[in-house]
Amino acid sequence: MSKEKQFVTEITPQAEDFSRWYIDVIKKAELMDYSPVRGCIVFRPEGYEIWEHIKEELDRRFKETGHRNAYFPLFIPESFFQKEKEHVEGFNPELPWVTEAGGEPLEERLAIRPTSETMIGHMYSKWIQSYRDLPVLINQWANVVRWEKRTLPFLRTSEFLWQEGHTAHETETEAREETMRMLGVYRSFVEDYLAIPVISGEKTPSERFAGAVDTYSIEAMMKDGRAVQAGTSHYLGNKFAVAFDIKYLDRENQLQFAHTTSWGVSTRLIGSLIMVHGDDRGLVLPPKVAPTQVIMIPIGPPKSRDAVLARVDELFGQLKQAGVRVRVDDRSDVSPGWKFNEYEMRGVPIRLELGPRDMDNGVCVLVSRVSGEKRVVNQSDLLVEIENMLEQVHREMYDKAASFRTENTFAVDTLDEMKALFEQKRGFVTAGWCGSEACEKQVKEETGATSRNIPFEPSERKAACLCCGDKAEHTVVFARAY
Amino acid sequence: MSKEKQFVTEITPQAEDFSRWYIDVIKKAELMDYSPVRGCIVFRPEGYEIWEHIKEELDRRFKETGHRNAYFPLFIPESFFQKEKEHVEGFNPELPWVTEAGGEPLEERLAIRPTSETMIGHMYSKWIQSYRDLPVLINQWANVVRWEKRTLPFLRTSEFLWQEGHTAHETETEAREETMRMLGVYRSFVEDYLAIPVISGEKTPSERFAGAVDTYSIEAMMKDGRAVQAGTSHYLGNKFAVAFDIKYLDRENQLQFAHTTSWGVSTRLIGSLIMVHGDDRGLVLPPKVAPTQVIMIPIGPPKSRDAVLARVDELFGQLKQAGVRVRVDDRSDVSPGWKFNEYEMRGVPIRLELGPRDMDNGVCVLVSRVSGEKRVVNQSDLLVEIENMLEQVHREMYDKAASFRTENTFAVDTLDEMKALFEQKRGFVTAGWCGSEACEKQVKEETGATSRNIPFEPSERKAACLCCGDKAEHTVVFARAY
Repeated sequence: MSKEKQFVTEITPQAEDFSRWYIDVIKKAELMDYSPVRGCIVFRPEGYEIWEHIKEELDRRFKETGHRNAYFPLFIPESFFQKEKEHVEGFNPELPWVTEAGGEPLEERLAIRPTSETMIGHMYSKWIQSYRDLPVLINQWANVVRWEKRTLPFLRTSEFLWQEGHTAHETETEAREETMRMLGVYRSFVEDYLAIPVISGEKTPSERFAGAVDTYSIEAMMKDGRAVQAGTSHYLGNKFAVAFDIKYLDRENQLQFAHTTSWGVSTRLIGSLIMVHGDDRGLVLPPKVAPTQVIMIPIGPPKSRDAVLARVDELFGQLKQAGVRVRVDDRSDVSPGWKFNEYEMRGVPIRLELGPRDMDNGVCVLVSRVSGEKRVVNQSDLLVEIENMLEQVHREMYDKAASFRTENTFAVDTLDEMKALFEQKRGFVTAGWCGSEACEKQVKEETGATSRNIPFEPSERKAACLCCGDKAEHTVVFARAY
Repeated sequence: MSKEKQFVTEITPQAEDFSRWYIDVIKKAELMDYSPVRGCIVFRPEGYEIWEHIKEELDRRFKETGHRNAYFPLFIPESFFQKEKEHVEGFNPELPWVTEAGGEPLEERLAIRPTSETMIGHMYSKWIQSYRDLPVLINQWANVVRWEKRTLPFLRTSEFLWQEGHTAHETETEAREETMRMLGVYRSFVEDYLAIPVISGEKTPSERFAGAVDTYSIEAMMKDGRAVQAGTSHYLGNKFAVAFDIKYLDRENQLQFAHTTSWGVSTRLIGSLIMVHGDDRGLVLPPKVAPTQVIMIPIGPPKSRDAVLARVDELFGQLKQAGVRVRVDDRSDVSPGWKFNEYEMRGVPIRLELGPRDMDNGVCVLVSRVSGEKRVVNQSDLLVEIENMLEQVHREMYDKAASFRTENTFAVDTLDEMKALFEQKRGFVTAGWCGSEACEKQVKEETGATSRNIPFEPSERKAACLCCGDKAEHTVVFARAY
């Protein structure tokens, strides 16, 4: 079997087995590796760098909206979890416990943080005394642990990386504004940077964060039609303020509980962008977070090699200088064809080819990973052409994902219709819902789909609940989810 | 007592009690707070932002020298520690253990990483097969935990933040070059960014990292004369490669063990820069890592307030646009004098004052935190003047620290001399050492000072061991250390 042949056959086609395709691709592209600890992965440099680009841009947007970073302890005393009833019920089953340290048993067990509301609530109660101390707008970049029964690299791992914003405000209005502002930051970031269209909306009560008054989410559709919750923002009301005694003297000198929020996105964004954009040849990485945006491949016979390489290096220098993330693959023991496959598999947005004839004509060839379009461009315009093509790749990826979502979103009136649909198709289903937990549960039991959220902008409003036929309070998006 | 008076008296003078001064300052400047978990602190935004600036610049330098970031699991299986004998002996007493997770006892206890040599060694053995896979140049930014008996904020905490570089090479020569290259990166960073002069050198065998063949360090002198190890770089030889089976096929198709290195700096750098530069008025922050580089304070009577504020805002906009980290304190319920004290305490490198008379003259006043120098400058030259003064503040801080170190470094010939010296003075002592652990131990027992390192460039070479009088193999720097 030729190297090229072998290459392609190593990736399971998506249509054959989407889960195997996913694992094949992320292993082969060296984004991750399994670790010896159950459910924990290693983020290899090619995977971690995607997270670095995500982090850098989100951090910029958080700071632009007035937030500062801080760092709180990894360990949370057991007693802290007891203070907010719903919170402990939500997280207790997933906690790992440190019971010994420094050669001695601990007096009080310490949980590894699954999220930091409790620790941060405790600290805020010390820091906040007066309305003058508000708002407190803090974010944390950290590792958290949730001991999951079933794991999937990036999408659901026992340890993962994330950011968690935690803010405290004088009034409900301000806290609610903050909750929506950060949902908006997530939405625009995921669309503008990851080229993933999302549905913003409110979670139903059964899908709320443990301890929240209201939870909002952005939901994305993977290429197998399943949903990923790509980011969440919570209005916590006074719940954590009461539990942790976060009180302040207001402008009338009265003691009040603060209103708090929290919001987060995690390394599951990496899994999402792979499942939204990848194809049977491998990864397709959004240009703004791709570790390599342009791969330069010199071609042609050995006798012209030195001259071609010299020109490639010059162009490389120009692009790098301008801030393009560019690499050259000048290995002579691997064929250009093999390299083409390699970098398609790795999802590099643009391939640049340069051979002796291109040298003579002062041009080079750009190939788009997403559309396969080949464009012959003048070397003198290279930077502008690259910038345009990166922008175009981003747009095409977004449009492709948006079309896919449209094609795989269906409105139904009854549960039977939904069941019949799921026998033939996959995707998102919008339907009316009366608001009762019983109906939501029935949908889940009979279809495996959960309510994703109540979209702010539903494509269509439904009048009756798909289950009981009573008046619909909301139009909900249902889907099987990761 | 006036507010100003109260202010100053809240900080214990350094000469009275240096440790209390340190705690007073870091609490008052809101760099940290104690957490409910023993030995773990909260990095508040003013403290964490110093770490962000450190991280950003070091990360740039690591990438410039060919390294990439990755992320490895927090948990390390107990069996991993057994593989390298010296490593387990060094770290075992300090490990916290997770014994239960997800509601069940674990089959094998998991340690929280104190450092990641073992986990990374395990992964490298999977990734490295051939000389073509080498070198592997990876860095990790992470939290680590060492359950310390005695803790001190930033300098020694149970959980801390750090970076750990881990590299694997074909040859000893390359690995040793890497070890020294990264020590050099640390040295130049700490000098150029934190304005801290350091002594580079090799650790004596008893002070080596657990499992290293050779350990190198940079050592800094605090204002109480004690030393802080500000960064370390280790040549690990084949030790971890043998323990974790990191083997590769060399250019002659023979199986060889790789040569590995590791190197790290941590949030103790924050503690160091405070103890090197601070004074009785509070923090003195190096301009390149100060969260606020310039604090603008409008002055003058209420009737001119609006006009002054408008001009301050304009200048603020210009400086911010140019990338200066600048803030305005326009509170009207606090006097300028109180603000002056406040930002001196917080260590802001430059104070800018602008009043109505300055408005008329088109000038403003810059005041240097380190020297107290006042400079009247034209508003039209403000950016250049600020940039120059920031540069000057950095140089003056460095020079001051270097002079302090010179004044407090003493050469001795005998242990008696050293003991007599420490009865009157504090600081670093250089002395000859025969190379025996017994002599090193005796110095420690009789003076409390440990060998810091064997400097590459000692100020003076000594011929005889300060303890036994035998021929000195090395000239060593001894000091009491944090």
